[in-house]
Amino acid sequence: MTIKKPTYAEIAAKKVKQRDAKFIKEWLVPDDKLPSSEVKDVLKWIQKSGFLSSKEIEITQSNITTILANIKAREWTSVEVTAAFCHRATIAHQLTNCLSEIFFEDALIRAAELDKHYEETGQTVGPLHGLPISLKDNFNVKGQATTLGIVNFCFNPEKFDEDAVLVKILREKGAVFYLKTNVPVAMMMPESNNHIWGNTTNPLNRSLSSGGSSGGEASLIKLRGSPMGVGSDIGGSIRIPASFQNLYAIKPTFGRFPTYGARSGLPGLESVNSVNGPLGNSLDDLEYYCRTVVESEPWFHDAKCIEIPWRKVELPGKLNIAICADDGFIRPTPPIRRAVKIVEDALREDGHDVIEWVPEDHLRLSQIISAFFLSDGGVHVKQETEATGESIFPYMKPYENAVDIPVSELWKLQAERTHLIKKYLDRWNATAAITKNGKPIDAIIMPVTPFAGNPNGKFHDYVGYTSPFNVLDYSVGIFPVTRADKDLDAKDEQSTNYNESDRKIWDDYNPEANHGGAAALQLIGRKFQEEKVIEMMKVVSQLINYSD
Amino acid sequence: MTIKKPTYAEIAAKKVKQRDAKFIKEWLVPDDKLPSSEVKDVLKWIQKSGFLSSKEIEITQSNITTILANIKAREWTSVEVTAAFCHRATIAHQLTNCLSEIFFEDALIRAAELDKHYEETGQTVGPLHGLPISLKDNFNVKGQATTLGIVNFCFNPEKFDEDAVLVKILREKGAVFYLKTNVPVAMMMPESNNHIWGNTTNPLNRSLSSGGSSGGEASLIKLRGSPMGVGSDIGGSIRIPASFQNLYAIKPTFGRFPTYGARSGLPGLESVNSVNGPLGNSLDDLEYYCRTVVESEPWFHDAKCIEIPWRKVELPGKLNIAICADDGFIRPTPPIRRAVKIVEDALREDGHDVIEWVPEDHLRLSQIISAFFLSDGGVHVKQETEATGESIFPYMKPYENAVDIPVSELWKLQAERTHLIKKYLDRWNATAAITKNGKPIDAIIMPVTPFAGNPNGKFHDYVGYTSPFNVLDYSVGIFPVTRADKDLDAKDEQSTNYNESDRKIWDDYNPEANHGGAAALQLIGRKFQEEKVIEMMKVVSQLINYSD
Repeated sequence: MTIKKPTYAEIAAKKVKQRDAKFIKEWLVPDDKLPSSEVKDVLKWIQKSGFLSSKEIEITQSNITTILANIKAREWTSVEVTAAFCHRATIAHQLTNCLSEIFFEDALIRAAELDKHYEETGQTVGPLHGLPISLKDNFNVKGQATTLGIVNFCFNPEKFDEDAVLVKILREKGAVFYLKTNVPVAMMMPESNNHIWGNTTNPLNRSLSSGGSSGGEASLIKLRGSPMGVGSDIGGSIRIPASFQNLYAIKPTFGRFPTYGARSGLPGLESVNSVNGPLGNSLDDLEYYCRTVVESEPWFHDAKCIEIPWRKVELPGKLNIAICADDGFIRPTPPIRRAVKIVEDALREDGHDVIEWVPEDHLRLSQIISAFFLSDGGVHVKQETEATGESIFPYMKPYENAVDIPVSELWKLQAERTHLIKKYLDRWNATAAITKNGKPIDAIIMPVTPFAGNPNGKFHDYVGYTSPFNVLDYSVGIFPVTRADKDLDAKDEQSTNYNESDRKIWDDYNPEANHGGAAALQLIGRKFQEEKVIEMMKVVSQLINYSD
Repeated sequence: MTIKKPTYAEIAAKKVKQRDAKFIKEWLVPDDKLPSSEVKDVLKWIQKSGFLSSKEIEITQSNITTILANIKAREWTSVEVTAAFCHRATIAHQLTNCLSEIFFEDALIRAAELDKHYEETGQTVGPLHGLPISLKDNFNVKGQATTLGIVNFCFNPEKFDEDAVLVKILREKGAVFYLKTNVPVAMMMPESNNHIWGNTTNPLNRSLSSGGSSGGEASLIKLRGSPMGVGSDIGGSIRIPASFQNLYAIKPTFGRFPTYGARSGLPGLESVNSVNGPLGNSLDDLEYYCRTVVESEPWFHDAKCIEIPWRKVELPGKLNIAICADDGFIRPTPPIRRAVKIVEDALREDGHDVIEWVPEDHLRLSQIISAFFLSDGGVHVKQETEATGESIFPYMKPYENAVDIPVSELWKLQAERTHLIKKYLDRWNATAAITKNGKPIDAIIMPVTPFAGNPNGKFHDYVGYTSPFNVLDYSVGIFPVTRADKDLDAKDEQSTNYNESDRKIWDDYNPEANHGGAAALQLIGRKFQEEKVIEMMKVVSQLINYSD
């Protein structure tokens, strides 16, 4: 008798069943009480649903600094806070399918231990004492799996023995881990969809994607199922979902935050490095998180971290800001163009020196990064997906057809990249010749993608607005600006298109379908300028004064 | 009629002839006045020869801080200083064949301009005003060639249009460039020999090699033909020559000093990065140089430089030092063992906490770095050497037989390396458990090679004492300890050997042939700890109080 090898669907079903059994039953909203699939915008649904107590609402609507202060002041316990977020995350998941692993029980035990410690000693264990933090499903957490949306990783290993360095640090500082969030296959697609957990949708408009690869994080945080979370970015994977959900986020320079012990979809790739950073609801939250991580001196625990302390930034009274409204390859759609204009007008009105940034080499930089991603011929991705025979999403086709190039070819690409990043730096410096104060620009502000969210399954495969800044390794922040509005963002007359991709995006833009989608932008600083990027985002955000 | 393609020897001869024509005739010592080849130790020959004036001797025996102070005090002009070093470098070259390109005339013109500027404005142009600095022949200097010891680069290009970023910075700070120094073919051999300029010997014992790849620098500086110079290191190329000449030197962590615009023997290689750093006669000189470069904020001009300022270091009263006397693969020869003992005894006597460092993974790290060097299948090296048909040195044979591996294989090596450097960091931290003050070690002190210089052409092909710290990317300093002495360093009874290489080095050790060779050691700090490494070397050097 032969034992039939399980199909990938069977393996995935088993995994999902095990996960689903861990939800706490009384927190699940009965199916018939959930909004129908016709209801697209579910942003306010949870707090209006009546399924959360007023205290749960108060806790989950709070920013992390408030939560931490209330725990410290003994207004709230960590158990109360953790339970509130577990409860809300459960409902968020019912709305947008944003979770992968859940471990609420471990979290509540941990929270109780922290409460006990605080009660007994009068001391918090650290600056994150009692705070739940959500994690993208690439961070290894002791006792949990890390699947990366690959069926073969469902039970392989079933659990990791050790926390990733970042997780270890956050835990030591008092964080409570309670779940991990959905990602695309191998984290290499612009939508968070895979054969284990399925697709995560966007709470602003559920017919739109949450984006990828940190889509689960962004969808969950937007629904306040998490007060803050950590994503990762190697081509836009923090920024695209953060922008699609109108969140604040940081894509740091590599070496600022520890990456060791995160599972990679492309292990061993170093021509461009994945980084991780926070997604959240406020800039103060991001700043608090970043400062806490950097002040833990991660360079003593991750050999690739760099000893740069968290620095106090004094911004000049008026900023020099370059605006790149259009990268010259794909023209942004109307809501994004409107977002750029809102920001540009506000900056000019406030007296900042706004110049135009004409991108050079963005296309070549984005071609080079794609070549880096595919340079192993997709060997690793194919090996892991073929192991269970899972079917290949169209987004992953390039990995099927990739060539495992010889290292001599890689060296040529790397040498070319070295020249291009030097050229970019020189151009940045050269703006000193055209600013009013004779100093170079402080930042570039530009779109994150050409669109304010894409209908599920229909991301146009162009990450040329984000990926150049992975090659350049600049520090980048995301900030919300507005939401797509079918009346304000009508499809205007078609101009001449740059190319076939541009024409296609133009043709596909549908103000009705895009209605409510987020229009956030990115603010790009030099390398290792995370502090300054946050301060500059504060300036811009105060000027535009937007919140969802 | 066909024009016969010149042979590599003809191309090299033309290049050398052009270079030789640039020497200033009256500075050349007549052949019959030079020491015979039987004279091995030429360290003091120049100052005793009578060919330098007493002022030239005074200038060239001075450290850079004295030179700069005297120029500033108008005791010496930059022209006087530059001429003195050009003169002495000429004789140094006659003794050890240490130079490649020379451009004394340009230097004297530049020095005169600096003197004029100072006279007219009362201001120096910067902290290096008027100081000649020698450069290893991989730094591009505007108007000069960079041959890397490869015949095909003799006239290809004949001159570079632009300074390397480091050269540009040093020039802006006031440095005067007057020559470049010899290297091995592609800088990838442990001796500075090639088919253009030939072999550079060691002034402490000319039957010994100057080492490689910064051998020209080390030989020249030891003869005070340069007050300080810049070398580069990707496997030991600063440290081996500095140790063979008993100099002080710094191999920094990548990103501390700018590297853009240096010609590479392995362009595009990034799995391990070449770094550059100073070689000199005093720690104060090195510190002054490092501070000057870092305070120029090179991160604004080299996209790979990292914004870490030059920091003031407060050392603990007593250091925690780990000593690695033997890496367990090749046993150091008697002079090196004696050098380690001198340092260890001095540290213990002064009350520092000395523990033993048992190296783990050094062999694997050195295998991995070799695999990185060869990972392009030697394609670039072969292409450039085959272009003129130059014959291949035995040291370069691995490049002939290398395989251009697929990137998927490179990723595996890189992933393994990532784990090994984390493991090393954890081991370093774990020393806190065995030190008296419960803090981790401040440094490791260990040999640079197993020998105190090698007879020309007979380097045993093992760089396992240096190359692991390129993979680890730690900051390392070199400091002189003693010189090999045929009476003190007798060949002792052969113990059991670790392996065949170890046995061969043991068999070949000849106290007579090695007499006078330098026995310097390396002091290894964590990443980006160049300031602390210099301070620690000061402590050790004061204790052992050695100078040649």
